[in-house]
Amino acid sequence: MRFCVFGAGRMGERHIANIAASGRAELAYVVDPDAARADAVASRHGGRAATDPALPLADPAVDAVIIASATNTHVDLIVASARAGKAILCEKPIDLDMARVDACAAALQGIDVPIMIGFQRRFDPTHRAVHDAVRDGAVGTVEVISIVSRDPAPPPYAYIEVSGGQFHDQMIHDFDLALWMADARGKTEVFAMGSNLVDRQIAAHGDTDTAQVLIRFESGAFCKIDCSRRAVYGYDQRVEVFGSAGMVSSGNQHRTAIERTGAAGIQARDTLQPDFLARYSPTYAVELDAFIDAVASGRAPEPGFDAGRRALALADAARLSHGEGRKVTIDI
Amino acid sequence: MRFCVFGAGRMGERHIANIAASGRAELAYVVDPDAARADAVASRHGGRAATDPALPLADPAVDAVIIASATNTHVDLIVASARAGKAILCEKPIDLDMARVDACAAALQGIDVPIMIGFQRRFDPTHRAVHDAVRDGAVGTVEVISIVSRDPAPPPYAYIEVSGGQFHDQMIHDFDLALWMADARGKTEVFAMGSNLVDRQIAAHGDTDTAQVLIRFESGAFCKIDCSRRAVYGYDQRVEVFGSAGMVSSGNQHRTAIERTGAAGIQARDTLQPDFLARYSPTYAVELDAFIDAVASGRAPEPGFDAGRRALALADAARLSHGEGRKVTIDI
Amino acid sequence: MRFCVFGAGRMGERHIANIAASGRAELAYVVDPDAARADAVASRHGGRAATDPALPLADPAVDAVIIASATNTHVDLIVASARAGKAILCEKPIDLDMARVDACAAALQGIDVPIMIGFQRRFDPTHRAVHDAVRDGAVGTVEVISIVSRDPAPPPYAYIEVSGGQFHDQMIHDFDLALWMADARGKTEVFAMGSNLVDRQIAAHGDTDTAQVLIRFESGAFCKIDCSRRAVYGYDQRVEVFGSAGMVSSGNQHRTAIERTGAAGIQARDTLQPDFLARYSPTYAVELDAFIDAVASGRAPEPGFDAGRRALALADAARLSHGEGRKVTIDI
Amino acid sequence: MRFCVFGAGRMGERHIANIAASGRAELAYVVDPDAARADAVASRHGGRAATDPALPLADPAVDAVIIASATNTHVDLIVASARAGKAILCEKPIDLDMARVDACAAALQGIDVPIMIGFQRRFDPTHRAVHDAVRDGAVGTVEVISIVSRDPAPPPYAYIEVSGGQFHDQMIHDFDLALWMADARGKTEVFAMGSNLVDRQIAAHGDTDTAQVLIRFESGAFCKIDCSRRAVYGYDQRVEVFGSAGMVSSGNQHRTAIERTGAAGIQARDTLQPDFLARYSPTYAVELDAFIDAVASGRAPEPGFDAGRRALALADAARLSHGEGRKVTIDI
Repeated sequence: MRFCVFGAGRMGERHIANIAASGRAELAYVVDPDAARADAVASRHGGRAATDPALPLADPAVDAVIIASATNTHVDLIVASARAGKAILCEKPIDLDMARVDACAAALQGIDVPIMIGFQRRFDPTHRAVHDAVRDGAVGTVEVISIVSRDPAPPPYAYIEVSGGQFHDQMIHDFDLALWMADARGKTEVFAMGSNLVDRQIAAHGDTDTAQVLIRFESGAFCKIDCSRRAVYGYDQRVEVFGSAGMVSSGNQHRTAIERTGAAGIQARDTLQPDFLARYSPTYAVELDAFIDAVASGRAPEPGFDAGRRALALADAARLSHGEGRKVTIDI
Repeated sequence: MRFCVFGAGRMGERHIANIAASGRAELAYVVDPDAARADAVASRHGGRAATDPALPLADPAVDAVIIASATNTHVDLIVASARAGKAILCEKPIDLDMARVDACAAALQGIDVPIMIGFQRRFDPTHRAVHDAVRDGAVGTVEVISIVSRDPAPPPYAYIEVSGGQFHDQMIHDFDLALWMADARGKTEVFAMGSNLVDRQIAAHGDTDTAQVLIRFESGAFCKIDCSRRAVYGYDQRVEVFGSAGMVSSGNQHRTAIERTGAAGIQARDTLQPDFLARYSPTYAVELDAFIDAVASGRAPEPGFDAGRRALALADAARLSHGEGRKVTIDI
Repeated sequence: MRFCVFGAGRMGERHIANIAASGRAELAYVVDPDAARADAVASRHGGRAATDPALPLADPAVDAVIIASATNTHVDLIVASARAGKAILCEKPIDLDMARVDACAAALQGIDVPIMIGFQRRFDPTHRAVHDAVRDGAVGTVEVISIVSRDPAPPPYAYIEVSGGQFHDQMIHDFDLALWMADARGKTEVFAMGSNLVDRQIAAHGDTDTAQVLIRFESGAFCKIDCSRRAVYGYDQRVEVFGSAGMVSSGNQHRTAIERTGAAGIQARDTLQPDFLARYSPTYAVELDAFIDAVASGRAPEPGFDAGRRALALADAARLSHGEGRKVTIDI
Repeated sequence: MRFCVFGAGRMGERHIANIAASGRAELAYVVDPDAARADAVASRHGGRAATDPALPLADPAVDAVIIASATNTHVDLIVASARAGKAILCEKPIDLDMARVDACAAALQGIDVPIMIGFQRRFDPTHRAVHDAVRDGAVGTVEVISIVSRDPAPPPYAYIEVSGGQFHDQMIHDFDLALWMADARGKTEVFAMGSNLVDRQIAAHGDTDTAQVLIRFESGAFCKIDCSRRAVYGYDQRVEVFGSAGMVSSGNQHRTAIERTGAAGIQARDTLQPDFLARYSPTYAVELDAFIDAVASGRAPEPGFDAGRRALALADAARLSHGEGRKVTIDI
């Protein structure tokens, strides 16, 4: 499968490295508005550089695109790529504005190309094992999903200002995990609260740093999401699914399996993975593999466009609930 | 210390057994409206039986009372015992009606007797260790308290009808733990939702069986409480406290430290404690000890009357929030 | 069941306290050569004091004896008690000299009284669960038993000199556990090595402080025992049984279920139990119960006289192997 | 660094793949007596194929060799490569015959090329963390090293016959780990026993399937090694180091961090890694990196030739001890 990658930044480079390491993919183009950067990346990895997306989209040798450019370019590139008949793997989010997402969906009407949204946590082996166990009935009927998602440290203020806010930037992954685990549709109640406990300056930049969301799905099942922008002990990522027949959980990951017991008598495990990269870096290659599998087999890739839209709907509801201090009910 | 125990039921007998086993306490009276039951219990354990509380309260040889009678008798017995100058250990709750609790407080004005409310979970060694670590600064500033509290199976319908409901009956313990861990006062936002996922018949008896509460304290710190009336895997009791400097948790307790790894390759720990009795039974003796210590030393026992009142205030707020589908703000 | 307890020392007092707490036993006599001590203990717990064993043994109201006196008195008291028709619970070891144990066995020929030897670790709930799982086939055919047994700190030199040495004093418990878990008989190869790593002074008192034994049973199955007189982290007591169908282990026990994760990122469990008393204290009451059950039901108590003899045979073989630097083969 | 790889079998291909993935190495030659196989592998990975080692050894563009050919060719290739001035990474063992290893050492006298022996377990992150903690004093003085090393299932009979036996084939890795952890030299006592518990047919092919070794180093410290050719629950690889100041252990590795608690109440972790490849596959790339680092920096690679010789000396001693049923003392 021959790929064009839009965006030669950090995320684009990661995808390009995975294309190189995969025996099933080949890099055809690297597109970036910064010609020098496109050139540099392309020359390192062997594809052609371009600044104009039209070039690769017109090339029949390109089978698929990976959209890893700035968020506000996603919708246009999705539509253009779909019209050109390319399979699409687009980084999350589709867009921060639901109106633009809906316009995108409208523009895609009648065009049949595979689209995957890059919620790569679904490809973490432990999260996946939990999901599959839940689908296989390990917990019976799902009743309570509990997600803890804590970054080691907050991002820069400049990033926070354009991030869309904690619900849209950090928690969007957890909303997707929640919907994936719950397999829920229909009337959904959302209640959210946020605080500034980590760094008061973040409030001055218009965002919270500690946020809690409580969701009730139409079935009556609950989902709790607990996010913080700081955990001094490392990258805290846990999912627990409780139901009528038991409980399955995705625990934290430690750097090694070393254990120490010293004179203080404490039995200590190794530190958690320090950050996003250490924990989730391998998921991108699994994601690419799943995308290639889906396209090759003609199955719709998962998570698809709809998953991206639904996670955004929860983020919008959470922001509204937090802003107005009331429960918000939506249909997802 | 010579004790009079009000109530010769299951809970009263437990206290009497602990009095017998303690080297520091002696049973003087057992009082129960059912004279035969009072006689039976007294003759087994060596105290005098009575049906009228006035008798032991008038006896100067009685130092302290344990109130383990029906909930609706607590307030009157507290007031009468206090007027008689007895130290008081009263089972939770003080009462299900805040107006009666406040009237009780008013009646106690100017009377200086030690009063302890029987939130015995505070005397669980692991919960206590977590609390003490938090107070010692192990997590820095408290930011998020997460409590999971799941019974193995629902109580009988008849019990549910008089229990005061899931927030007042089951979650009252967790409200007390939350306040004890958080050491919080002031403006408190409470949002609660409940569902009937375990047994639809429970709804017919006017209660939920699965309930979630999200609290924000004045500091901006959060507390999540997750209750279910059923967990097929045993008695699930966990507390986790997260803060600016780390995290401390009170994990579940397994029957033994056996581990098995069989042909399926799964490494399995022993089952959880099966129920309330197996897990928390030892806490009553520790509680009695703490009560005797406090009375002997002249310190106010903890948890005191105010703790009972504050936990009830949270339960009232949760019930109101659940009933009206909105956030409720109180001062605690 | 009415008991006479020989020995009013630390171990005798422990048994007497358990008799008092049990609803099924009563203390009739306390016998100790030190009349004042016998009196003191008897007056505290309500039995009669004596210095001469003949008195209680002649009393038909005495059903059973507990022998908790000095090791070198065990054999004579066993024989006398058996001749008097009393059920016997004798602290380990029967004797440190195999010739005297065999003479004792000969003297018991034809006398049918229940005899239990006080290897109380068999009544630890986790060790028992492991044993029962093994008997129920959880590991298939037993192939390798691994025992780690480390004290927090060495005993006083004076004790070491009369203890019989590390194989007979500390490891005798592990030999019994090994035989109980393995259920092995017949030709047994024993290889032992000891070192002085903890305290060179212990060598001057004629003993090792770190000892390793490797056993091969007739079936070809192995047992490793790893003893140290010192572990700075607490009381380390582990048993692991591996076989054709899996592995079952008895893990260490922590004081509480608290876990901490701090700024260093280390996830830490609570300390191990600090010593023998904290870990195994509850086993004595379970042992007493099992003894009463066996006597009441007419079943031979387990562990019986033969178990005491077999553990001693392994200790003798280990000492010989260590002394001569060669493998020793015995029949057990 | 330009590499010639001797041996185009499974192990050779693994090294070649790691050379390809490394940004610091390049494949120059693939040498195999089977010309077709050499061609196939070379054409896949871009090096030149050869059947005669002389060709690459004469090529000044070759910096280093990896010897992954049949064991009985190792010594000759080491000597020839050293004489050609190439840096050498040789798969373990150097040879199964100590006389040939010593002859090799003699032939290397006066030739200064970097030589590393492929004990790749040293590059497992958890084993490495344990080693480094021990070197940093985490356990104080080392007193007892315990190694458990169990394969999921025995190799084919044909392999067993040429493997050198369980001590030389399976346990050689553990001997190297033991020496690496212990950092021990001098007089060493070795006692070994083996059994046939897994498959009696293995005895017919001249080998044991369950083996135990007990070692005492000159310091008095012990090492226990516990090997089985079968564990139904997966690949069991554990190292524990106990000493005067504590204990550090390298625990088993589970496939994912999933945990399940079902109606039976058992809390279960995921299965262990299923086999050697799943557990240790990543270590080869780390090993290659360490080799390149050492050569580039002029430091002697670790583990070096001497490590290979010392592990073999322990295997020889264990085989002799097992054969003669007695303790064997060597100088290492």
